Amino acid sequence: MSTRLTYFGAAGYEIVGPTHRILIDPFLSENPLAPCSPDDLDPPDVLLVSHAAFDHYGDAGRIAKRTGAPVVCDAAVKAMLVDEGVPSSQVSATTWGIVVEVAGLRVRPVECHHWSQAVLSDGRQVVGNPIAFIVETEPGVRIYHYGDTCIFDMRLIGELYRPTVGLLGCTLPRELSHRIEGPGRFLTGEMDADEAARAAEMLQLELAVACHYLEPDDEVRRFVELVPAYDTTGSRRVVAPLVGDTLVVEAGSHAIEPRARTA
Amino acid sequence: MSTRLTYFGAAGYEIVGPTHRILIDPFLSENPLAPCSPDDLDPPDVLLVSHAAFDHYGDAGRIAKRTGAPVVCDAAVKAMLVDEGVPSSQVSATTWGIVVEVAGLRVRPVECHHWSQAVLSDGRQVVGNPIAFIVETEPGVRIYHYGDTCIFDMRLIGELYRPTVGLLGCTLPRELSHRIEGPGRFLTGEMDADEAARAAEMLQLELAVACHYLEPDDEVRRFVELVPAYDTTGSRRVVAPLVGDTLVVEAGSHAIEPRARTA
Amino acid sequence: MSTRLTYFGAAGYEIVGPTHRILIDPFLSENPLAPCSPDDLDPPDVLLVSHAAFDHYGDAGRIAKRTGAPVVCDAAVKAMLVDEGVPSSQVSATTWGIVVEVAGLRVRPVECHHWSQAVLSDGRQVVGNPIAFIVETEPGVRIYHYGDTCIFDMRLIGELYRPTVGLLGCTLPRELSHRIEGPGRFLTGEMDADEAARAAEMLQLELAVACHYLEPDDEVRRFVELVPAYDTTGSRRVVAPLVGDTLVVEAGSHAIEPRARTA
Repeated sequence: MSTRLTYFGAAGYEIVGPTHRILIDPFLSENPLAPCSPDDLDPPDVLLVSHAAFDHYGDAGRIAKRTGAPVVCDAAVKAMLVDEGVPSSQVSATTWGIVVEVAGLRVRPVECHHWSQAVLSDGRQVVGNPIAFIVETEPGVRIYHYGDTCIFDMRLIGELYRPTVGLLGCTLPRELSHRIEGPGRFLTGEMDADEAARAAEMLQLELAVACHYLEPDDEVRRFVELVPAYDTTGSRRVVAPLVGDTLVVEAGSHAIEPRARTA
Repeated sequence: MSTRLTYFGAAGYEIVGPTHRILIDPFLSENPLAPCSPDDLDPPDVLLVSHAAFDHYGDAGRIAKRTGAPVVCDAAVKAMLVDEGVPSSQVSATTWGIVVEVAGLRVRPVECHHWSQAVLSDGRQVVGNPIAFIVETEPGVRIYHYGDTCIFDMRLIGELYRPTVGLLGCTLPRELSHRIEGPGRFLTGEMDADEAARAAEMLQLELAVACHYLEPDDEVRRFVELVPAYDTTGSRRVVAPLVGDTLVVEAGSHAIEPRARTA
Repeated sequence: MSTRLTYFGAAGYEIVGPTHRILIDPFLSENPLAPCSPDDLDPPDVLLVSHAAFDHYGDAGRIAKRTGAPVVCDAAVKAMLVDEGVPSSQVSATTWGIVVEVAGLRVRPVECHHWSQAVLSDGRQVVGNPIAFIVETEPGVRIYHYGDTCIFDMRLIGELYRPTVGLLGCTLPRELSHRIEGPGRFLTGEMDADEAARAAEMLQLELAVACHYLEPDDEVRRFVELVPAYDTTGSRRVVAPLVGDTLVVEAGSHAIEPRARTA
């Protein structure tokens, strides 16, 4: 048994386990490195969207409409999906703590210290609670998706839900910086490499996976160096997939299958 | 001296202490087990509303209009009340940390990690900060109402404000599940039994009171079992009132008066 | 080298360091004790606004329009500024964790447990994430502005970013209480003196600066007494400037220059 996580870039993953195909934060059509089109994806059993930011929401509406897949998300994302024409009955809005079973999969939303807001087609602002997700895809593979949280004391999450694999933002997709308006320059993502490596320790992960980039940058490399520096277990593994790579995980081990690249 | 807490179901209570009658989260007219009508309640000295969800906001507007009782709540609830015709001057909007004195009662709002949002009659979304409340009804009786928070590290709240009685959601009112739209099924409330029992320990409660149900379910029974399991004080008590029961509390002890039931 | 912090009252400061002039939460034109007019201020290099409350947002729009200074704030404040006519390109909206470099200054937004909401000129409610800020004005002078947070476990912020000077609300500007609508009376600010003194310890500050008042009240005096009571370093200093005073800080020491007062 194993679970395959194909990295789409930003915080997007297709996760295929023994029982479910899960799509998270599918940022594809506006992603210059996307390994596939949102129209080519196999229909997921469940689509998870952590919050309303463009590089996380991505093609959620388009995929939900085409495939009819049930969505689990927060209230702001639900409003966006309905605004795009997804039937309201297809979307489960939840928040921190309320475990939702959908298509037979248990989805645990946990605190994500960030924001989730969007402006709908009629000009209304909608605001929700951003979500980090934990799903168990097979015995011993409990995947934590950080949902773009900043650092906070995550030890309770580690103690209570014992995620084994953590998808942790440690930088920002700099290729998209031109979409951030204003006079400032974003130097870091919501977590930098040091914060994300500390998060891996607080969560007591077995495998820390770098996240929230297109091309890996120096922060990604620093994350790979720092995860062992904060590891008190002596056995934590760390990996930074390239966009398009597939991470194959089972309880206690993992491997990378590189993206098929055209010659 | 004693304080009487009559349980309305969901997170609704009428709390009558030596000096004040306090109503919290009065979910009655749409509550199939409600022990009374919102129109029959004695006017409270203070009405507290934790957040904008229908099973907490309940009949707050109707009661506020009929009785003129001052309300303490967040900004979203205030917008809902005003939308229903409650005078703005009757409603104190506050947030975490700002202690409000109203009708001579000190109301302490503390962090509640949840959401509070509603859509007004004109279609506008309003969003606020959900609130957990602490009120001291008599010396040695400091009541914490969880306001529908998920679990987080509550030890600082316990240390600073030393609540003695905690009203802790540990499940969800499953009779209302048909009102939750979408393809998912909610398996738990914002806290499950295990999380709520841990919250009782973090808050260092003397008496942990199960909350957020109509008919008690297995999670309520599990809460009653787990509270002692996490208790490091050796003296924590736990109780799960039925809807309509009155919990009579004084410093160091409590008793249950069952709901008067028709033959 | 030194950094000069002139206190405007509420949470407003002009901070002039060796390299940058920084304005934070400039509440002036409606401030009865304001030491200057918003129209007389030297143009700041950067204007920081923590959240949308009137006593923090203050004259941010007026100053931004007159001076063209770049602003760093949350989404609600950005919406307010744009609503007042500030070009969107002049305003960097950020949130917790995302370090922004603007005019060569690194601005670190950290968690602020509060709310940020406003109603725009067209009646729309906007909501954002309130921000606390950390800026290093010179080597060894790292200033934390609390942004009106309530107390929470701030030890991680202290450990990670090691602020040396903390601007900590410990009361509320009671002269403005008539602007708070409703039947309640606010007894405390978002933190009271005890909570703020504990925050100083959690942040491991060298210098704790009382904040969020116009005339200092008993809570300010209690803060000055309590900071040493919670100090485990044995060397923490505490100061409560009067509005108009200038606090001159360098690594390891500070002095107060009183406001020039007319005879």
